[in-house]
Amino acid sequence: MRISIVGITGYSGLELLRILQHHPRAKVVSIHATKEIGKFLSELYPHLKGLCDLKIEVFDSQRIMQQADLVFFATPSGVAKEMVADFIAADFPVIDLSGDHRLPGDIYKKWYKKEPAQAIIQKKFIYALSEFADVSEKRFIANPGCYATATELVLIPLLQAQAIELDSIIVDAKSGLTGAGKNPTEASHFVQVHDNYVTYKLNQHQHIPEIVQFLQSFDEKLASIQFSTSLIPVNRGIVATVYVKLRKGLNVADISSMYRRCYQDKPFVRVQAALPTLHQVIGTNYTDIGFDYNPVTNILTVVAVLDNLVKGAAGQAVQNMNLMFGFQETEGLLSPPLFV
Amino acid sequence: MRISIVGITGYSGLELLRILQHHPRAKVVSIHATKEIGKFLSELYPHLKGLCDLKIEVFDSQRIMQQADLVFFATPSGVAKEMVADFIAADFPVIDLSGDHRLPGDIYKKWYKKEPAQAIIQKKFIYALSEFADVSEKRFIANPGCYATATELVLIPLLQAQAIELDSIIVDAKSGLTGAGKNPTEASHFVQVHDNYVTYKLNQHQHIPEIVQFLQSFDEKLASIQFSTSLIPVNRGIVATVYVKLRKGLNVADISSMYRRCYQDKPFVRVQAALPTLHQVIGTNYTDIGFDYNPVTNILTVVAVLDNLVKGAAGQAVQNMNLMFGFQETEGLLSPPLFV
Amino acid sequence: MRISIVGITGYSGLELLRILQHHPRAKVVSIHATKEIGKFLSELYPHLKGLCDLKIEVFDSQRIMQQADLVFFATPSGVAKEMVADFIAADFPVIDLSGDHRLPGDIYKKWYKKEPAQAIIQKKFIYALSEFADVSEKRFIANPGCYATATELVLIPLLQAQAIELDSIIVDAKSGLTGAGKNPTEASHFVQVHDNYVTYKLNQHQHIPEIVQFLQSFDEKLASIQFSTSLIPVNRGIVATVYVKLRKGLNVADISSMYRRCYQDKPFVRVQAALPTLHQVIGTNYTDIGFDYNPVTNILTVVAVLDNLVKGAAGQAVQNMNLMFGFQETEGLLSPPLFV
Amino acid sequence: MRISIVGITGYSGLELLRILQHHPRAKVVSIHATKEIGKFLSELYPHLKGLCDLKIEVFDSQRIMQQADLVFFATPSGVAKEMVADFIAADFPVIDLSGDHRLPGDIYKKWYKKEPAQAIIQKKFIYALSEFADVSEKRFIANPGCYATATELVLIPLLQAQAIELDSIIVDAKSGLTGAGKNPTEASHFVQVHDNYVTYKLNQHQHIPEIVQFLQSFDEKLASIQFSTSLIPVNRGIVATVYVKLRKGLNVADISSMYRRCYQDKPFVRVQAALPTLHQVIGTNYTDIGFDYNPVTNILTVVAVLDNLVKGAAGQAVQNMNLMFGFQETEGLLSPPLFV
Repeated sequence: MRISIVGITGYSGLELLRILQHHPRAKVVSIHATKEIGKFLSELYPHLKGLCDLKIEVFDSQRIMQQADLVFFATPSGVAKEMVADFIAADFPVIDLSGDHRLPGDIYKKWYKKEPAQAIIQKKFIYALSEFADVSEKRFIANPGCYATATELVLIPLLQAQAIELDSIIVDAKSGLTGAGKNPTEASHFVQVHDNYVTYKLNQHQHIPEIVQFLQSFDEKLASIQFSTSLIPVNRGIVATVYVKLRKGLNVADISSMYRRCYQDKPFVRVQAALPTLHQVIGTNYTDIGFDYNPVTNILTVVAVLDNLVKGAAGQAVQNMNLMFGFQETEGLLSPPLFV
Repeated sequence: MRISIVGITGYSGLELLRILQHHPRAKVVSIHATKEIGKFLSELYPHLKGLCDLKIEVFDSQRIMQQADLVFFATPSGVAKEMVADFIAADFPVIDLSGDHRLPGDIYKKWYKKEPAQAIIQKKFIYALSEFADVSEKRFIANPGCYATATELVLIPLLQAQAIELDSIIVDAKSGLTGAGKNPTEASHFVQVHDNYVTYKLNQHQHIPEIVQFLQSFDEKLASIQFSTSLIPVNRGIVATVYVKLRKGLNVADISSMYRRCYQDKPFVRVQAALPTLHQVIGTNYTDIGFDYNPVTNILTVVAVLDNLVKGAAGQAVQNMNLMFGFQETEGLLSPPLFV
Repeated sequence: MRISIVGITGYSGLELLRILQHHPRAKVVSIHATKEIGKFLSELYPHLKGLCDLKIEVFDSQRIMQQADLVFFATPSGVAKEMVADFIAADFPVIDLSGDHRLPGDIYKKWYKKEPAQAIIQKKFIYALSEFADVSEKRFIANPGCYATATELVLIPLLQAQAIELDSIIVDAKSGLTGAGKNPTEASHFVQVHDNYVTYKLNQHQHIPEIVQFLQSFDEKLASIQFSTSLIPVNRGIVATVYVKLRKGLNVADISSMYRRCYQDKPFVRVQAALPTLHQVIGTNYTDIGFDYNPVTNILTVVAVLDNLVKGAAGQAVQNMNLMFGFQETEGLLSPPLFV
Repeated sequence: MRISIVGITGYSGLELLRILQHHPRAKVVSIHATKEIGKFLSELYPHLKGLCDLKIEVFDSQRIMQQADLVFFATPSGVAKEMVADFIAADFPVIDLSGDHRLPGDIYKKWYKKEPAQAIIQKKFIYALSEFADVSEKRFIANPGCYATATELVLIPLLQAQAIELDSIIVDAKSGLTGAGKNPTEASHFVQVHDNYVTYKLNQHQHIPEIVQFLQSFDEKLASIQFSTSLIPVNRGIVATVYVKLRKGLNVADISSMYRRCYQDKPFVRVQAALPTLHQVIGTNYTDIGFDYNPVTNILTVVAVLDNLVKGAAGQAVQNMNLMFGFQETEGLLSPPLFV
């Protein structure tokens, strides 16, 4: 399995490279960016010295299709949609980590404030939350967002079991700074983030529509969710704290069995006995889920944690690759976390 | 105004000293602890060299009443209740920063897992959220908890205006580590906290009953709240993110005017145009409040931030002292934050 | 004392405002920047709501001289030198926190890579490390750099006593991120700084020449120092770890008495019994100094800590103002640190 | 290769498990501790759920020798020396990550303030800095300390080339908190470490004697080094900043070729073109080295970074295992860092 990565210098591109380094069935053969063309990646990123001897290449769809069997797009939103046409035309496999092919054009335009991909192309992509998508025959994958992955994995078992009041969903989500991208801005300056807690894009985060859209495929009556996003002073990690009202007659044992049943065969979702912490998943493809039911308020609190660069981006992309090509789902993805 | 502080070596005791250092009408005359008796405080805490020349004394109620005009208890829960009897008997002013005199005995026992204060003594204390308590004639103050202060300041204007559905209140609260006390434990070890986000005591935090009790004095129909507490990797700060459903017919302008009206004469509650961040209040006695209404879900999100050691403890205690003794409410409390 | 601040939106400008807020003899009457002219500062910085009602003004030397008695320049290097001419001509007091007037033109040009101030103007400025400068009759102050302040306060007592081998001085200095300025760059991005330790500008930091120049006024035979600078993941703080070889026949008691004698009447330099930590000085104008002598290697290690925005910038500027105008040296500057 | 780990619940024990998880030739068959006997490790450490199904066992040398081919001691100092006798008697391979067998008894006692191992046993251990030890025939390995590894890897090439003045060595070393162990103390409390920089054990760190002893095997005239240790607010990482005076006639190109020649065949020491940062090595077995020569002072500054739990402990132990048993040196150890 020969792989090309477009957008190598972003956090997700570098993370793909990290994860694929020891994948038994995949080998990165070319890396692409818009800057620093011709340089060795390990020159720009000395942490890769001795581990990667690739040079950065300009993007060239024909060369990629000649050299590789699969292309990952780890580009900022708005980029992949301009670059995928040749691959689609040639039926060459694409996994897009960006938001460009997750949403219908009108919704994309509203939330991303950008021109959308062509409808005919966007529709060829399948939105693939690995645990709930059948990608085995698919060629074009829209990899879910990091907040979306955590939120969907929490809510799907509850929706499948019709366990909750649909208008009661509140998600208080927190993210580390790699989730906000590599571009230096006032908002990502160390001094601004350190010792701080910053709530941003309240009800306006661009992951909201993909969450609602995907959850509606499990219960079409779900109309909307309340969704807050905050930055916490860590590099990696998503914490999604989800509050829902239970339907009458359910108890905590019911919830427990719903989650365990739903995820018993899903190697990357671990239903934990206690509320999970970020440390448990850093560097891994796991989503850890824990919950607590308050009989006084009838509210179920579910906490999900994941590494936004792994299960929230590059790791899930590799998981999708494994599933697309019939490899074992966990191949190359079973490292223990750097839990401290 | 001569002041004694009992519990000087805890975070709140030291913070009282810091705040009172330049109070124009107050002077700390004695400091008390159970350890290191006879030592200069500045020997143990070199940051105080040149700023404080007091020695630590053993607790002695008679000496305190001879030397001072007011005593602050900045002791862990379970301590003040064993020490206040002489002061009560002598009608000597007490401000207790601990939880010992905030709750009736049965409720205290349930949430603190400790024997409560005597009922006859506990009832002499007034629970004094400064903005909503009349302490001008009072002698015995139960100073509110840090989470409680933030949550109550968010909810009282909404309850007063009957603006929300009472069974919809969800508080997702976060705290820095000084809120968890100075005792070294596995949970407060740097390696465990750093780069992590740890949710703890879900629905079991001992500030819940004081919040519910106090809010019921504004709307007795309020039965309970959903309350989550998490540790974020900062030293100081409380963030309370509060979600409520609005009653029909209200809009964001109504909410805005409720808050502004309620707090227009309250110097330490700032209703801000944007959602507040922790940086805005560190080192100060301010609570900053911002909000956002989502018409799609009919949910109002209110974010309040404060410094748990100041408005959440020592600062509010000094504010209460100012109010008790007829000083200007803001005296000694108007420093700008260390916003970076 | 009416004060104007030029460069209000930088870290040092805002810190001047914070410190002067409660100075008993000074009042900020105008604030100047190149952006956001006409806006209330508290609109841009909500942490100042209720504390500052000034609007940002365009720089105008005539208006400043009409309204104020003193102007502080808290501007990036290269700016003040273009703006001070009118003040010099009018003999109007200036304290420049930037590096523009600390060095002769040729040296400035070499280290700052910028055109220097005119020699005739630069020479009117006195380089004022408060503890060792006589500024009582002076009008134009070049306020020292943060690294320089820490290093000089460590070395001067040793030079005065001829205690060390002059070619043995090694300074391993560390700084928090506010020292690197507010401009968002790759180097100041949270993700790059957090969990990292980055050594930069080794032997090339622009504070080196001002240190050497000023130390030569204490021992002209001193030719150079070895000087390393690293960024540590904190917002505020300088740690200067200084290594020197002692001249023969000296012992640790001699060193101790040198430091204590030198600083006994200097309220802002505290010679501590133990090696100091950053916490001890955050938010204050103190420099704390501790040391340790190793008889095996004959090396004396001295550690100095200070808050780069206070003693390393705005605080020392106010200390210099106090000294210039005959106020008490400590006025407005004696707050205890936010030691946690 | 069947492996037992004694001291599984410490940071180094858990890190051994993490590293060995995917080692192609090794399998952990038993894990030992003094507490929580009989519990599944993944119950105590939910990050291991699905990755490790071992139960914690009491220490039992006979059972270990029956079940395993090698035992790692990842115990605090003072423990392994009480437990190794049976293994030595049976000539059963031991790798001790603690300091118990690195030093002769009198030196151990002086620096560790504990009774030493028996001389006859201590002498059977070889101090194995992997790059400079021949362990191929050895059974008993004393794995170097974290600070020691960084310092030795910097200095050996210089000593081998007789490039430096031996009495000029100054090491300013910094460590993350995992290096200080898991025991909660005042010094490891989050509030104390966060936003701080704490210099400790100046000239008294117990790694000093092993460094001097080992370096003397490269140049017996080396008598001592100046060695400072400080805690920086990160979880993992050692930064050793080393200052030395060059012997006459050497230039930076000479130094460069010394380092490159010395480490050209050493896969885990990377001589980098720029000064390295901690990020480059986190989670890996690399030591990255960079340097800078100042012709003005004739001082060479060398910066080495490593992950104290990997190259500074568990990773080097596995590297030593690979070398002892004739596996490829890099097996199981070539993961890219979690560089953000």
